[in-house]
Amino acid sequence: MRTAALQLFAEHGFAAVSMRQIASAVGVQAGALYNYTADKQSLLFDLMKTHMQDVLAAVPDTPHLTPTQQLEAFVRFHIAFHHRRPEEVFIAYMELRNLTPDNFEIIEELRRSYEARLQGILARGIASDDFAVEDAKIATFAVIAMLTGVNTWFKEGGRLSLADVQDQYWHMVRKSVGA
Amino acid sequence: MRTAALQLFAEHGFAAVSMRQIASAVGVQAGALYNYTADKQSLLFDLMKTHMQDVLAAVPDTPHLTPTQQLEAFVRFHIAFHHRRPEEVFIAYMELRNLTPDNFEIIEELRRSYEARLQGILARGIASDDFAVEDAKIATFAVIAMLTGVNTWFKEGGRLSLADVQDQYWHMVRKSVGA
Repeated sequence: MRTAALQLFAEHGFAAVSMRQIASAVGVQAGALYNYTADKQSLLFDLMKTHMQDVLAAVPDTPHLTPTQQLEAFVRFHIAFHHRRPEEVFIAYMELRNLTPDNFEIIEELRRSYEARLQGILARGIASDDFAVEDAKIATFAVIAMLTGVNTWFKEGGRLSLADVQDQYWHMVRKSVGA
Repeated sequence: MRTAALQLFAEHGFAAVSMRQIASAVGVQAGALYNYTADKQSLLFDLMKTHMQDVLAAVPDTPHLTPTQQLEAFVRFHIAFHHRRPEEVFIAYMELRNLTPDNFEIIEELRRSYEARLQGILARGIASDDFAVEDAKIATFAVIAMLTGVNTWFKEGGRLSLADVQDQYWHMVRKSVGA
């Protein structure tokens, strides 16, 4: 049911998809869906929350590494993780406006926790003089936007492998923070 | 009518907005809209095409400058232009899937023309040894995604002015291309 909802929301948008369509994609009667979810809002919130919890659980925990090594691990992780979940990434950006205020606040808090991981690496590298960054918060926004942008153009099987893309983005990020 | 459609599409999504709602926001009968547009698809296409044509008309033409000066002009322009048009930027990303194939191809061609402006600057700076960039096309995607990301977080009246943001992003972009 969650896979069907994810694909329908990504293709048509949350507002344009009915519980009936989701039920039809799953192959059950619409009424049966309500055994598993309270409503369409709960389904959207659950998809977005699970995505953010997954990324927080998977992001490398690397306190033993140098700031530069930590940053490299983060960059390579972010690109690979988000590449494997294009629908979740698209919905996470696009459907924020369709969350209720309470649900929005919970998703935003999870997103801030993820950003804090990168900001912590940058702050550590600034303190140790490994990085030359004016503002760790701004650099966090800039790096995450750059990395997530890979999803808008990269397709496997073309001129570049995912590893090539990770290499090139890592070199650009490394230089951008003066490491 | 275009302003009303833009705001409604950005708030609710193209699929969820009816011609009736657009007419109601304009203060006319639904039938009257069809004197100005063939249908909702034409309205979306027109909004996206106008946005791309506007950005192409406004991007600085700076062949007399050095590659580094050209890149700085591009970075500052992109941030300021897109900051002033948050709804257009949101729709340009989000509603691509709702364009007909023919309309999609026209918008993509305009988008590629805009990207080619930055890619040309990077290629010129690589040729003159002003920039150290592995692949001008990848760097173009990376820089545009980074700059457009400003729209997801920057609000006027906070800790930083738009000029501060332009400065910090320019410093990061400059370093990322080795200039």
